Amino acid sequence: MDGTRVFLANSNQHINIGKEKHSRNGFVYVKNPHLDLMEEDILYHLALGTKTHNLPAMFGDIKFVCVGGSPNRMKAFAQFMQKELGHEGEDNDLENICAGTDRYSMYKVGPVLSISHGMGIPSISIMLHELIKLLHHAKCCDVTIIRIGTSGGLGVEPGSVVITDVAVDSFFKPQFEQVILDRVVTRSTELDQDLASELLKCSRNDFPTLMGHTMCTYDFYEGQGRLDGALCCFSNEKKLEYLKRAYNAGVRNIEMESTVFAAMCRLCGLKAAVICVTLLNRLEGDQIKASHEVLAEYQRRPQQLIATLIKKRLGLINDKELLDNAIV
Amino acid sequence: MDGTRVFLANSNQHINIGKEKHSRNGFVYVKNPHLDLMEEDILYHLALGTKTHNLPAMFGDIKFVCVGGSPNRMKAFAQFMQKELGHEGEDNDLENICAGTDRYSMYKVGPVLSISHGMGIPSISIMLHELIKLLHHAKCCDVTIIRIGTSGGLGVEPGSVVITDVAVDSFFKPQFEQVILDRVVTRSTELDQDLASELLKCSRNDFPTLMGHTMCTYDFYEGQGRLDGALCCFSNEKKLEYLKRAYNAGVRNIEMESTVFAAMCRLCGLKAAVICVTLLNRLEGDQIKASHEVLAEYQRRPQQLIATLIKKRLGLINDKELLDNAIV
Repeated sequence: MDGTRVFLANSNQHINIGKEKHSRNGFVYVKNPHLDLMEEDILYHLALGTKTHNLPAMFGDIKFVCVGGSPNRMKAFAQFMQKELGHEGEDNDLENICAGTDRYSMYKVGPVLSISHGMGIPSISIMLHELIKLLHHAKCCDVTIIRIGTSGGLGVEPGSVVITDVAVDSFFKPQFEQVILDRVVTRSTELDQDLASELLKCSRNDFPTLMGHTMCTYDFYEGQGRLDGALCCFSNEKKLEYLKRAYNAGVRNIEMESTVFAAMCRLCGLKAAVICVTLLNRLEGDQIKASHEVLAEYQRRPQQLIATLIKKRLGLINDKELLDNAIV
Repeated sequence: MDGTRVFLANSNQHINIGKEKHSRNGFVYVKNPHLDLMEEDILYHLALGTKTHNLPAMFGDIKFVCVGGSPNRMKAFAQFMQKELGHEGEDNDLENICAGTDRYSMYKVGPVLSISHGMGIPSISIMLHELIKLLHHAKCCDVTIIRIGTSGGLGVEPGSVVITDVAVDSFFKPQFEQVILDRVVTRSTELDQDLASELLKCSRNDFPTLMGHTMCTYDFYEGQGRLDGALCCFSNEKKLEYLKRAYNAGVRNIEMESTVFAAMCRLCGLKAAVICVTLLNRLEGDQIKASHEVLAEYQRRPQQLIATLIKKRLGLINDKELLDNAIV
């Protein structure tokens, strides 16, 4: 379609990177030979740096990183984890580690890091580059990373929690197109299947939880087939035809960050999962009309599953307790 | 490159829309026939709505909308405009109109609205859809919209202010590719040339101000040829070859929102400009190393030009005063 916009002949090289063993001894693995030559690394959008902060001391014990769009939600998640892990007494007033900037917010509760990433692929991509370098500089190992998001559901009841098996683009393909200089490189968006299954096993009877494809778009209105944006040039029939085609391809929810999240974590040897609550059923409408209270309760649902997983991994809850509550 | 990913045969239709007379009698013009059929419009990410808020009473007098990535910077701009417009006594404590959400921040000072948009094309796109609907519902007319940003400079002194003549993509083309359902539509990214010239005339001798192309990318690291991300697969030579090619194509700065901003404002009949300060010269490095104080002073520079333009338009400053201070 364009002489300058082609798939790289060596694009497989980038995909193959994902199949190598990345995390040597479980360490987070940056894929950039230039980093070793730098005297200092300023993580500009996190307001942290290798010379100004002792990153291994601050972050070396991190085992779980949870990321989500909204700063308030990620603070609420950190407060929830304080209670769940019994850290309440230690530090009631959670400190925003990125207080030096208003681009992102970051909170730490024991081995759990909670960070906001804003909305959309570019915003989460900046955060992930700097987070992955942070984990690398801090010599973190065996890190699990989970995106906790909100999304539009497809053919599922509002409030359902979707655990992503694979992130797909607007064309239902499990890939992310990364522009590098002026070349387009295609990267795989596969997520860790064992982690997804483990998360599913943490579900109880409280709310519907399912596994499905998650579609990631570049915008909320035209790109997701909404009829209520400032611009719309298609009919309700065309919209429904597209959304039903997505449903038939296995898509159960739509959001705006999962493909680049999956692609970057995979390349850097981070075991990654995406777990989003659906705020509405897009086959039935476009506007988010539920009350603030209902939406707030919905948003706590994925957090509960993640807390269960983290407590299980830390030995604070055992498999029997889980089984007693699980959907059989 | 992909059967489903083609330019629409009728893509000219969308480009032509931009050439029609949009703003009938100067009103902000949404391009969506479905909106008229909606009983209520919830502007979800702004926490505003047509039934819950009297939008004409709240926003009907808006003539200038200034948008920028950082919430703190947009609050600082609103405070600066309070002083410049002599509104200080009236309302010392600026209220965040979007306090019901943490997605965006919004402040109003007389006819000036200041809003944050986060980072990247998807994030600004959501805000623009809802902002344009807000201006439409509020029956605003003759609105000028200006993006005040930070950027990486190309071959210009750090701290230079670049007024965008045209926003280009990673391939140096003056276009924005919008995915609508699963089709790619190409939109023009032309900006208002008269507004750009008027802004340039507001410059004084305090700091370098120039007009040039602005390149808009989907990420900060690989997409802008940075060697300091978590992922990097190219050499310093390849990076410089690309950046010099961009310079030769007329690009003077690089940021992450201008193409969709130009395309959407153009389609909706909003006279739009982009004015960004450069935080570093990308031909000399990748990391932003200037001190907090220097960066803060840089970020006030585009705000000064915009304040001059607004005061001139409101008759608070005359052309002679401008000429006395201008670079001849």
